[in-house]
Amino acid sequence: MSSQTPIDRLVAGFRGFHALYYEQRPERIRDLVEVGQKPKILMIACSDSRVDPAIVTNAEPGELFIVRNVANLVPPYMPDGNYHSTSAALEFAVRDLKVEHIVVLGHSRCGGIRAFMDASSGRSSEREFIGPWVSICHCAGGKTDSDEVERGAIKGSINNLMTFPWVRERVEAGTLSLHGWWFKIETGNLWELDEETGEYEQRV
Amino acid sequence: MSSQTPIDRLVAGFRGFHALYYEQRPERIRDLVEVGQKPKILMIACSDSRVDPAIVTNAEPGELFIVRNVANLVPPYMPDGNYHSTSAALEFAVRDLKVEHIVVLGHSRCGGIRAFMDASSGRSSEREFIGPWVSICHCAGGKTDSDEVERGAIKGSINNLMTFPWVRERVEAGTLSLHGWWFKIETGNLWELDEETGEYEQRV
Amino acid sequence: MSSQTPIDRLVAGFRGFHALYYEQRPERIRDLVEVGQKPKILMIACSDSRVDPAIVTNAEPGELFIVRNVANLVPPYMPDGNYHSTSAALEFAVRDLKVEHIVVLGHSRCGGIRAFMDASSGRSSEREFIGPWVSICHCAGGKTDSDEVERGAIKGSINNLMTFPWVRERVEAGTLSLHGWWFKIETGNLWELDEETGEYEQRV
Amino acid sequence: MSSQTPIDRLVAGFRGFHALYYEQRPERIRDLVEVGQKPKILMIACSDSRVDPAIVTNAEPGELFIVRNVANLVPPYMPDGNYHSTSAALEFAVRDLKVEHIVVLGHSRCGGIRAFMDASSGRSSEREFIGPWVSICHCAGGKTDSDEVERGAIKGSINNLMTFPWVRERVEAGTLSLHGWWFKIETGNLWELDEETGEYEQRV
Repeated sequence: MSSQTPIDRLVAGFRGFHALYYEQRPERIRDLVEVGQKPKILMIACSDSRVDPAIVTNAEPGELFIVRNVANLVPPYMPDGNYHSTSAALEFAVRDLKVEHIVVLGHSRCGGIRAFMDASSGRSSEREFIGPWVSICHCAGGKTDSDEVERGAIKGSINNLMTFPWVRERVEAGTLSLHGWWFKIETGNLWELDEETGEYEQRV
Repeated sequence: MSSQTPIDRLVAGFRGFHALYYEQRPERIRDLVEVGQKPKILMIACSDSRVDPAIVTNAEPGELFIVRNVANLVPPYMPDGNYHSTSAALEFAVRDLKVEHIVVLGHSRCGGIRAFMDASSGRSSEREFIGPWVSICHCAGGKTDSDEVERGAIKGSINNLMTFPWVRERVEAGTLSLHGWWFKIETGNLWELDEETGEYEQRV
Repeated sequence: MSSQTPIDRLVAGFRGFHALYYEQRPERIRDLVEVGQKPKILMIACSDSRVDPAIVTNAEPGELFIVRNVANLVPPYMPDGNYHSTSAALEFAVRDLKVEHIVVLGHSRCGGIRAFMDASSGRSSEREFIGPWVSICHCAGGKTDSDEVERGAIKGSINNLMTFPWVRERVEAGTLSLHGWWFKIETGNLWELDEETGEYEQRV
Repeated sequence: MSSQTPIDRLVAGFRGFHALYYEQRPERIRDLVEVGQKPKILMIACSDSRVDPAIVTNAEPGELFIVRNVANLVPPYMPDGNYHSTSAALEFAVRDLKVEHIVVLGHSRCGGIRAFMDASSGRSSEREFIGPWVSICHCAGGKTDSDEVERGAIKGSINNLMTFPWVRERVEAGTLSLHGWWFKIETGNLWELDEETGEYEQRV
């Protein structure tokens, strides 16, 4: 045990996963292999290690198609042939898997949002990628409270989702719903964006 | 219960998460809030709902910083000021969080790899983003067995990781290790890339 | 998978337990082996497969010392040298392990209580042991509503606990607390006996 | 959080159980309420907090009907009208629930077995109940190694099970199987009694 590395722990965890999902209760995975995945929800979440979507929602394999990037951002629609990680996953989830819900899951104490705020306030950064990436949430700029910027960035991502024609079309047809959630990590509460009012309401 | 939606289930799962991590055993989250996250591992995984990194490794909050995109791809180093979701997360994990390991976790039956193979073989696609995105794995092209392409794509991502100067530097200094894992979803086995031989060895 | 028996499933579950508690996170068990068990709570619960104390309270190894018998009954103090399963466990928990709490966990739809009610109303039974055993709850007799009998039986068990001199002594000294809980399995609610009023209050 | 008691933790755990089994995935409990319990396995296990049957086998509600007493003992058949906790549960499981398997789950470092060995070697005890109770395993006496005594006590319990006529009858008819398991807590290994040879074989 003394020489156990973080990688050893992961592999041990994988053995536990195998014991549970392949040996003890193989029904779920067997279906997911034979039939293929049929997730009803795309979740766009932050890479932050404290805000894992499967952990915070106690999801089972097959339930959530998940994109994770810094600050759970969605860029605007730009079909220019370049590499667009988030847009590609969005496209696959909406057009191929035909998910019925997209949840943008943001959270407090977000390091990516902090980087954006630092950059906005003129604090220099030596980083090459994080600055341009988090500039996506410029619509949330001008605020000085990080909770507010995080919540504003979620709204911005939802607005950007609507710039994708095949998202807008499905939302307007009523076959796709968009949800903005903000998880306050200090207290464990979940807040939900009310699309009508633009305000966040506490859900848990 | 009769009108329970997939979103209701997620919210119920969140209540369970709250009960466990905030009420019953609050120590872990309390530390993660007060001290901040200190993950030792960056995992680059697929968006596929059947291959959730936290589920397949039984991770706890705080253990894994995670990027998820279609086909768990890493693009090459391109500091051009555009939006680079994966590169931004990589940068944040390596330069700010100082992770010690990067695991590229691929898997069998990957829909993104299937899209790449279809495009490579001339089958047309009406998709705008998925095609350019999965073209990153061109280095795995020419193969006709999807398992082989998936395994080749993991190698390609590891090669691309090494094009980032601040990754290469740390790998060469011995402070960062790169791991290629391939999860065979049909059987629940985990295969690991041996960097010396370029072959995959079964680990679980 | 086709020939998987219930016993195979248990053994697979044990492998998952081993992976989690011995390989991935060995700290807890290591302490419990080296230091020995130090549970603070004795739980007296029913054998019913739907009301497992560790499952319904999400307990970890080492937290609960547990007696399980039909209808979660405690017989009165009878130090006659015969085999007394429940009294022996009670004695070990209180005098050797020095638990600080005893929880009697009853539940609705209890088959043992049903057997008692049937016997009380004169319906014959061919059983040799279940009848005498559930007659312990005679103090709850006279009622015709099973929820009431179950709740009354919990009170009876707590009264019987107080007939053990080394329980009474500790309760009066304030080093041991007795709790009566009733779990309504149809709704998932937990009710707690208020010792002052003798009434049950909903806790969850 | 600062004033959180062990009881508070249990109640919080119960809330998590409610969130999971009543709100997020209500199907299992709903069936268990509507149809009633149908466990296929009776497990006779020790009260020891480190050896919880549901935890060590990762059981779900409804899978295991469980008796827990000190040292997982089964007394011999004695239909004398007295209170027989273990025999009553055995009777209910076998004759009413019609379980197909009985597992006697023993373990190393058992405090009850230690008490028996101390008493056997003449060390006096001031205890009223634990001594008579653990004297059930006299058939395992004469040994000086606690692992051997524990393993012998499991055999003794299985022999005692066969003294119950309605157990013997079902075993001989092939509708009920008896299993002796010994869990070595220091290493996490599971050993199974081979009824043919009388020896224990490592299973996990």
